[in-house]
Amino acid sequence: MTPEESKNLLRELLLKGSSEELNHELEHIHPADILEILHEDDDANFETILKRLPESFVADLIDEEDEEEKYEILKVLSDYQQSEVLKEMSSDELTDLVGSLEDEELDDVLNKMSDEDREDVKQLLAYDPDTAGGIMATEFIAIWENKTVKKTLEYLQSIKEEMESSYYLFVTDRNFILKGVISLRELVSTPFDTLISEITNPHVISIDVNMDQEEVAHKFEKYGFVTMPVVDETNKMLGIVTVDDIVQIIQDENTEDIHQLGGVSGEERVDGTLAESIRSRLPWLMVNLLTAILAASVVGAFEGTISQVVALATIMPIVTGMGGNAGTQSLTIIVRGIALGELTGDNARRILFKELGVGLITGVVIGLLMCIIGLIFQGKMIFGLVCGVAMFLNMVAATMAGYFVPLLLKKMHVDPALASAVFVTTVTDVLGFFFFLGLATMFLPYLL
Amino acid sequence: MTPEESKNLLRELLLKGSSEELNHELEHIHPADILEILHEDDDANFETILKRLPESFVADLIDEEDEEEKYEILKVLSDYQQSEVLKEMSSDELTDLVGSLEDEELDDVLNKMSDEDREDVKQLLAYDPDTAGGIMATEFIAIWENKTVKKTLEYLQSIKEEMESSYYLFVTDRNFILKGVISLRELVSTPFDTLISEITNPHVISIDVNMDQEEVAHKFEKYGFVTMPVVDETNKMLGIVTVDDIVQIIQDENTEDIHQLGGVSGEERVDGTLAESIRSRLPWLMVNLLTAILAASVVGAFEGTISQVVALATIMPIVTGMGGNAGTQSLTIIVRGIALGELTGDNARRILFKELGVGLITGVVIGLLMCIIGLIFQGKMIFGLVCGVAMFLNMVAATMAGYFVPLLLKKMHVDPALASAVFVTTVTDVLGFFFFLGLATMFLPYLL
Repeated sequence: MTPEESKNLLRELLLKGSSEELNHELEHIHPADILEILHEDDDANFETILKRLPESFVADLIDEEDEEEKYEILKVLSDYQQSEVLKEMSSDELTDLVGSLEDEELDDVLNKMSDEDREDVKQLLAYDPDTAGGIMATEFIAIWENKTVKKTLEYLQSIKEEMESSYYLFVTDRNFILKGVISLRELVSTPFDTLISEITNPHVISIDVNMDQEEVAHKFEKYGFVTMPVVDETNKMLGIVTVDDIVQIIQDENTEDIHQLGGVSGEERVDGTLAESIRSRLPWLMVNLLTAILAASVVGAFEGTISQVVALATIMPIVTGMGGNAGTQSLTIIVRGIALGELTGDNARRILFKELGVGLITGVVIGLLMCIIGLIFQGKMIFGLVCGVAMFLNMVAATMAGYFVPLLLKKMHVDPALASAVFVTTVTDVLGFFFFLGLATMFLPYLL
Repeated sequence: MTPEESKNLLRELLLKGSSEELNHELEHIHPADILEILHEDDDANFETILKRLPESFVADLIDEEDEEEKYEILKVLSDYQQSEVLKEMSSDELTDLVGSLEDEELDDVLNKMSDEDREDVKQLLAYDPDTAGGIMATEFIAIWENKTVKKTLEYLQSIKEEMESSYYLFVTDRNFILKGVISLRELVSTPFDTLISEITNPHVISIDVNMDQEEVAHKFEKYGFVTMPVVDETNKMLGIVTVDDIVQIIQDENTEDIHQLGGVSGEERVDGTLAESIRSRLPWLMVNLLTAILAASVVGAFEGTISQVVALATIMPIVTGMGGNAGTQSLTIIVRGIALGELTGDNARRILFKELGVGLITGVVIGLLMCIIGLIFQGKMIFGLVCGVAMFLNMVAATMAGYFVPLLLKKMHVDPALASAVFVTTVTDVLGFFFFLGLATMFLPYLL
């Protein structure tokens, strides 16, 4: 059966299968696959299918769906169904849902929640959405250390419904102060009569509720866990963060960095609207226009020289362009190094000298080539020297700008990915024109 | 206790603690934390600490360590210790280790492995390292569906050692043909006398052994699993891929894309050596130099025009620079859209028209501004018009190049991130100079 055929079969089932068949099959179908079908179908089918699905499954669908589309699913259901769906969702899923809503929709959805859920969500909404508190779920399994493995398994069997996203059990005291952790792996492979305290790992690595989500992602990468506990300053356990959220955060942060380095907003999407693209790009083009005018004004100041040696106009874009390339190379390495946490206080000095070395060496190589190009092009040794020396100076300036601009932006608490490229190419354009045309003006009598 | 103090305490323990203390404490310390201490210490301490650690812990350290550094840890140990450490490592960990070795070291390490491990590793090395086969581990827990939960738990208790990285149990027949999956969550929360067949999910989502690792990462993102089974074409289970490897792959692929977009090799690291940086960057600078000469030769062809209207030399870098910025914006969105799988056959046409729309609208806006700038700068309406029209044409060409270049490269099976930027800026430079100086030459009599 081809993927297309099995998709059609599934669509048939969703639209026309008996509710018994439907419930039976859905137990084993991943919501992401149903979502794919819903996205491809028309509005009528969309509504029919959603109304036929069990509430717990709709809850999973909403969890899988992109932030802006979550409410589209919920709102086709009856008020009663909506309440039932909301009951099935965990606190972080609910928070994600309401986080994207406008005031009126927000009130409506909050009213349909149980009192307990509403309180949880209001608490979670109080955290900055880009921190551990903003991404955590408050549902987790806390156990006590004076029980045996068998007792604990029986306890877990009794709360099956709540087991949803845990691969670890957290050992706490009655006030939920975090004492230790046990993986399910450990639990299932330990004899029944062992005491929990014997297999508890007391060195839990936890996350402060106010930690930035990028730092949380670094912790997951470093330790390779699938779940980490979130605690407040008293070590009271507040919730858990799971690795599937982290994968999404890593991708989003990377998209943001790549977009910003390319001069578009972090939020623009390839399948977004024309208006969104214009809003994302036009402001940066305006900023670039200003910096381009600044650079052009340097050229303007040397028009007298150019009018006497027109060959300068031909060569000058090479000098600024190559500087721009070298600067972009350095800033790319530095910006990525900062994002990955690989550029630290300890190695910053060594990396500065390395970048300087790159500037000097590539400057000599490209400078020599420019010298030859200039000589061939205009026939005068001194013209070649002006080309080569200007190129050398601009390459060194470029790597230094590529090093210092992102680090200075970071010191000023500006995202280095956001503005580094504009600053660095402004430096290489302005200095490139200045070095080249300035040197040419100094040696003008010999160039004629 | 500050992090610095607890680190010093741990270092003290590693260097001077009794072996009993050491073994007891290490049970609960994450290898990533020990690795941090080893990286900061001098060579003498590095060796002392490694020789004092239990072999199973050294195996974990090697697993955590970066690819190129793994062998540095192993080689300080005695031959006997090396064999013991290798015994503790899983097949994918061993494959990662030997994958980075030169011929002589490789033979040495293979000789120290058990016969079984050596066979496993040789098999895994046969897979392309960038596919599911190249990243999977061959250790997984297969169970049979006619057993009860309790029998299964007892079985797991008996093979505790092998449980290392599983959160799922895979139900197979005697030939390891994959029949279904059970999460540990499900297992621990189901009454003891339930049959495994009753809680097995037969709709396992599996990964073909030859699937590219980037596609594997997409599957993990889509479904949010922490482990996925790897199968061959007969649905025989070969191994598992775990989400912690996926997080690393996602970061590496992102770093590669960001670096390539910035004109440096995917492998360069911010804390690498000067020689590595030069090797990573100089080739791209050379390519850029060639394309810059190509663009400059367009300027050279119009030297006659420039010598008569020197103001053209001042304005022309703005026309090419702005085109470069607009082209980079489009290609960034397209390259990232391809990488995230968001640009598909279905929406490619719509996105083409959107990019064209962006080119036309930003072209009109920036073109009008250029028209005014030209007018102010030189005082002639016709000069302003030449600036504005050239700018408009170059903005449209830029967005079209930003759209088509990455897609064409992808069709030719070249990584779009690798070469798009060079091609697009070459287009915007060459066409920018050509539009601007060509128009100026056409209207030269009116510009004088």
